[in-house]
Amino acid sequence: MNVQGKPTRTIWTEEGDDGTWIIDQTCLPYHFVVRRLTSAEEAAYAIRTMQVRGAPLIGATAAHGIALEMRRDPSDPSLDWACSLLMGARPTAVNLRWAVERMRFALKPLSPGMRPEAARRLAATICDEDVALNRSLAEHGLPLLLQAWHRKGKVSPVQVLTHCNAGWLATVDGGTALAPVYAAHDAGIPVHVWVDETRPRNQGASLTAWELGQHGVPHTLITDNAGGYLMQRGRVDLCLVGTDRTTACGDVANKIGTYLKALAARDNEIPFYVALPSPSLDTSLRDGLNIPIEERDPSEVTHLTGQLPSGEVASVLLAPAGTRAANPGFDVTPARLITALITERGVCPASEEGLRALFPERYPETP
Amino acid sequence: MNVQGKPTRTIWTEEGDDGTWIIDQTCLPYHFVVRRLTSAEEAAYAIRTMQVRGAPLIGATAAHGIALEMRRDPSDPSLDWACSLLMGARPTAVNLRWAVERMRFALKPLSPGMRPEAARRLAATICDEDVALNRSLAEHGLPLLLQAWHRKGKVSPVQVLTHCNAGWLATVDGGTALAPVYAAHDAGIPVHVWVDETRPRNQGASLTAWELGQHGVPHTLITDNAGGYLMQRGRVDLCLVGTDRTTACGDVANKIGTYLKALAARDNEIPFYVALPSPSLDTSLRDGLNIPIEERDPSEVTHLTGQLPSGEVASVLLAPAGTRAANPGFDVTPARLITALITERGVCPASEEGLRALFPERYPETP
Repeated sequence: MNVQGKPTRTIWTEEGDDGTWIIDQTCLPYHFVVRRLTSAEEAAYAIRTMQVRGAPLIGATAAHGIALEMRRDPSDPSLDWACSLLMGARPTAVNLRWAVERMRFALKPLSPGMRPEAARRLAATICDEDVALNRSLAEHGLPLLLQAWHRKGKVSPVQVLTHCNAGWLATVDGGTALAPVYAAHDAGIPVHVWVDETRPRNQGASLTAWELGQHGVPHTLITDNAGGYLMQRGRVDLCLVGTDRTTACGDVANKIGTYLKALAARDNEIPFYVALPSPSLDTSLRDGLNIPIEERDPSEVTHLTGQLPSGEVASVLLAPAGTRAANPGFDVTPARLITALITERGVCPASEEGLRALFPERYPETP
Repeated sequence: MNVQGKPTRTIWTEEGDDGTWIIDQTCLPYHFVVRRLTSAEEAAYAIRTMQVRGAPLIGATAAHGIALEMRRDPSDPSLDWACSLLMGARPTAVNLRWAVERMRFALKPLSPGMRPEAARRLAATICDEDVALNRSLAEHGLPLLLQAWHRKGKVSPVQVLTHCNAGWLATVDGGTALAPVYAAHDAGIPVHVWVDETRPRNQGASLTAWELGQHGVPHTLITDNAGGYLMQRGRVDLCLVGTDRTTACGDVANKIGTYLKALAARDNEIPFYVALPSPSLDTSLRDGLNIPIEERDPSEVTHLTGQLPSGEVASVLLAPAGTRAANPGFDVTPARLITALITERGVCPASEEGLRALFPERYPETP
């Protein structure tokens, strides 16, 4: 996607430079800052502090982190240490585990001398695969927006509600939930996005609004509280969100608050779609309520970062000093509330049957 | 309730002083500031800028505003002007209309000379009635918390989730939704409150957390997104919210986002109670979706006020400069999602039948 008119990925390498570059997303939307990573530790730091976030981008960053470490020290202990460090950087995202295990599986049999180059190539492949995957999500999701446009007689824009950021900033490029939105916009289908601000970290207000704006897609920012009202009044045609982890039977863990929007969509008979890149499918889990949920720092709830009129970015306290807060990062939307899953292999019902038909290799036969 | 140990109301007069005093709630939770109102215009300003908020307190402030104006100019045009000015200060709260009409009805027949004293007395009566009413809400709501405590075997605190501020700061004293919570706490029943921050204006973080803290009630601040997760995990025993306006059949308009919590409560079989002081019952409306919903300034969504580390209170921008935002102030929770209404005359089902049994005089027979 474009930043100030220039095609940009969220993570990239440059010819003749051993580092890996990322966009520091904690500086958005006020400043566009890029950072150079040189080690697994720096990659883990970038993941942990959410300089990079979004399940696919976290996986890609972990892969690059291992590649950076192999350049420093390609020994077995170094590989094990880097894998374990990166695996622990965020607890919920299954892509992280998937990317780390793929790197370990490919690198472990190699002699240390071969690892640096192999690691760098595999990290690049993981990134390119993500971009191709998101193109498929766009292709399979686009007809759903087209149908919505036809249903409303093509008289006014398709109204999409999204939560958090499942746009290109959450991936290497292209986005997951927003991929079909960009595809529709680029195809000349008028589309307007209601952007949930997504407290506590406000990824909607700071990231989704920013990237939609850069690409010229009409959008309106709302509080997380407002979506139910808009659905009650017929002002949302469909909901489209991403997922951090989806279980064997189609339960979806996504940013905290997603479940509430799915309930409102069901209550108002509005389609609720989840864009599901298959790396975030975790068939080892059945019941979504078993997904471990990250409990984040309470200060994300009691404080909020924004820009002062002076241009300075500052954190302000929102509650009486010393107020206790709880900060669960994700909730689980049960499959029964999901109209369909958009995957890179097509659209399917949110059920084991639906997923198994598209991803049979992920469902080993029970003996 | 107590502020720094001293019994305080949210609106009061003082011997030998013609003005009316209020707590400027826009300064909470960082500073405790009181202001002196001297005219209908100042009262309307206090309502419009939410120095005072909460349906009962808005009504009480409007009554005082008319009383202040009668002291300045007790003529018919002045009475009409003050009533119309105050009526327009906030569009949703039915208490406002109720209080203004009660003042007008009582004052209009009087000679101008009698109006100042009569207006001041009636405004004081309206305030005292609110306090008495809230005591009744506490009395009728307390058994619901007691039941919840017994249901869980009295082994751990009753977990209450509340949205926005329906505490004593929203009333003259005592609170509506929080009245039973204070009653339970004072009666020695252990109770813990999950406080929704309530974007965009964060009345939960700034007001509910503050007043619960002043009274010593254990509480934990959460984002508006987190309530569904807590309910899924069995960490909420009941929801308890206020209402700005309730229709003849029990549909409830309350702070934006209330509807989403009611949906989650239903989905998890958790009781969802609404504290309904009868002045906010509007039997002239049937369908909640006909309640006019206030569309507030978009800057409340794009900006947020908090306290800098220096102690200074500042507004920060949360989104890319120029981002468009929508800001509906309320949503409607349909009666079907409400377990029961807690009124000053007892607890009843959220239905016309239930309300009619307690408030027959508000339901004139159809011919």
